[in-house]
Amino acid sequence: GGLGLGLALGLWRRQAAFAVARDDEEEKELRQRFMAPPVSGLRELRRRRRELRSRMELLIMETQAEMCRALADLDPGASFAIDSWERKEGGGGISCVLQDGEVFEKAGVNVSVVSGLLSEEAARQMRSRGKSLKAKDGKLPFCAMGVSSVIHPKNPHVPTMHFNYRYFEIEEADGTKQWWFGGGTDLTPTYLNEEDAIHFHKTLKEACDKHDLKLYPKYKKWCDDYFYIKHRGERRGIGGIFFDDMNSPSKEEVFQFVKSCAKAVVPCYIPIVKKHCHDSFTPEEKLWQQLRRGRYVEFNLLYDRGTKFGLLTPGSRIESILMSLPLTARWEYMHNPPESSKEAEILEVLRNPKDWVH
Amino acid sequence: GGLGLGLALGLWRRQAAFAVARDDEEEKELRQRFMAPPVSGLRELRRRRRELRSRMELLIMETQAEMCRALADLDPGASFAIDSWERKEGGGGISCVLQDGEVFEKAGVNVSVVSGLLSEEAARQMRSRGKSLKAKDGKLPFCAMGVSSVIHPKNPHVPTMHFNYRYFEIEEADGTKQWWFGGGTDLTPTYLNEEDAIHFHKTLKEACDKHDLKLYPKYKKWCDDYFYIKHRGERRGIGGIFFDDMNSPSKEEVFQFVKSCAKAVVPCYIPIVKKHCHDSFTPEEKLWQQLRRGRYVEFNLLYDRGTKFGLLTPGSRIESILMSLPLTARWEYMHNPPESSKEAEILEVLRNPKDWVH
Repeated sequence: GGLGLGLALGLWRRQAAFAVARDDEEEKELRQRFMAPPVSGLRELRRRRRELRSRMELLIMETQAEMCRALADLDPGASFAIDSWERKEGGGGISCVLQDGEVFEKAGVNVSVVSGLLSEEAARQMRSRGKSLKAKDGKLPFCAMGVSSVIHPKNPHVPTMHFNYRYFEIEEADGTKQWWFGGGTDLTPTYLNEEDAIHFHKTLKEACDKHDLKLYPKYKKWCDDYFYIKHRGERRGIGGIFFDDMNSPSKEEVFQFVKSCAKAVVPCYIPIVKKHCHDSFTPEEKLWQQLRRGRYVEFNLLYDRGTKFGLLTPGSRIESILMSLPLTARWEYMHNPPESSKEAEILEVLRNPKDWVH
Repeated sequence: GGLGLGLALGLWRRQAAFAVARDDEEEKELRQRFMAPPVSGLRELRRRRRELRSRMELLIMETQAEMCRALADLDPGASFAIDSWERKEGGGGISCVLQDGEVFEKAGVNVSVVSGLLSEEAARQMRSRGKSLKAKDGKLPFCAMGVSSVIHPKNPHVPTMHFNYRYFEIEEADGTKQWWFGGGTDLTPTYLNEEDAIHFHKTLKEACDKHDLKLYPKYKKWCDDYFYIKHRGERRGIGGIFFDDMNSPSKEEVFQFVKSCAKAVVPCYIPIVKKHCHDSFTPEEKLWQQLRRGRYVEFNLLYDRGTKFGLLTPGSRIESILMSLPLTARWEYMHNPPESSKEAEILEVLRNPKDWVH
């Protein structure tokens, strides 16, 4: 299918905000490749095309567009809001959100490219290993960019999916630049489908294996450990990959790895949506989905470092951070699914994570 | 109306868990006064009836029963789950939850009476002023008890209400006992009704004024400050009273004040429920209620000290802590009510708290 009409119409709605002189060719290229003009400007990105920052910004813009097009193809009637926003302190972003469609309850794909000065304390918190950095006059120039997305489908037989790929640069007092990548892709089904779980993990494993056979097992385990809802003793989902603070073997090699992961997002997930989006379901299955959505909210608000960090960062865009929350969620007191039910089956896997591929 | 049949039947469902020898008179008294036998046992409470701990335990048990009876009167067909639970580390509680009734979407009233040993660090966190306490061998014997409740009605014209009254005792190494009370009652309407807001605050003010005219203004402000959703720039509701760490002028006087507040819970709220529970409402009004429920979840999971402390406490009962979450909630990307709408009216008050009585 082609690009949905709603999407095509919405695509340049916010264009007025980018009232810059631009030739026809550039305009055409932007329209074809991205959801909106990049934060750093296409000309600037071209001029500095050899720098990793520019290449990463293009990668996250492309990843956003690939995912949004795949979503619009599957849900052509849905309206897609595209918001370009600026951050007073430096940089900005592009948020694309499809809400209350036929296939998707809420699907957001967000790009942000921000820069400015960080306090030593904030810099320490950003890095999962908590290494301290030497600042000049207590402030560290930084640049952070990433693409992040949460897709909540309507049908309880289609899983929720989340991905995020990000890059940080911080300049220390002596001029040395610290840099690292982070990211991951993970799946949160309402009901377990082993075939889907295997397809999802196999696609991610293939992306990792091209770079180093040690990466997939390490990052699958990190994913299970990170998305842990401690007070429930459950993971948020059935896994995927997760990594942070990655800065070896080299900037180029890590970028190539992140690129492979980003390119795997659509193939690991979209076939699962296509397969199940017309499955029939019962009101009881919808209810169980809503209860699982409640757990998703619990994880994101109580434990997710990205959400917490985002909400505490001055000048951050609240609506883009909280677009990860589902449209609807439910909490029932003392809900315990009966033994050997389909609901108990997924709970078992959330309590004891499985290796889906070896 | 009399006590709902569902409630009457459910009342002693869990009685088997309390298989203690008990004479007919005692059994009769328990049935009349409380939702379930008290954690410390009626005989023990009688024996130590002069101690403040015992008097406070009776007060929280009575407050629970008063509220549950008022709820059951208003929603006679609803089923009321009554769970007595024990805490491995010492103490226990009684949770009463009405779910998916005609009038109430979810209404929970929880009593807990726990005791044991606290680390110095945990003791410091429990106290809002963060005073440090001297422990023997690093451990502090403590006793904590309270009644807490969140009532989420179905009709968007009936506000959500929360209250909590609690008492702490900690014994220091030299045998001195630190003690303090905390609590509050606050209202979270979906739409503003000035008459209701005034009735609610006036009832609380009268309870406070009997003890000291300075208390109401101080605790109204504390309430507005505490229930602040920082990332939204909004309060959770339109206020009420909130206080913590209260330990003067004397134990007896503070207890009498807390008792007045606890006795004001039913009269400040139940008339508002009665007045509006049959109001007609539109699907748009129900939707706005669901969005406000989302904000309620944001506050409770991101900011509420009680929830955080509870979830981090070993042996705490997760279901009783999270019963404060609504049955259903909703998050829409970029929802902004139009100017001069009823939705904008309540937002204005949540952004700029008002004094409802002077």
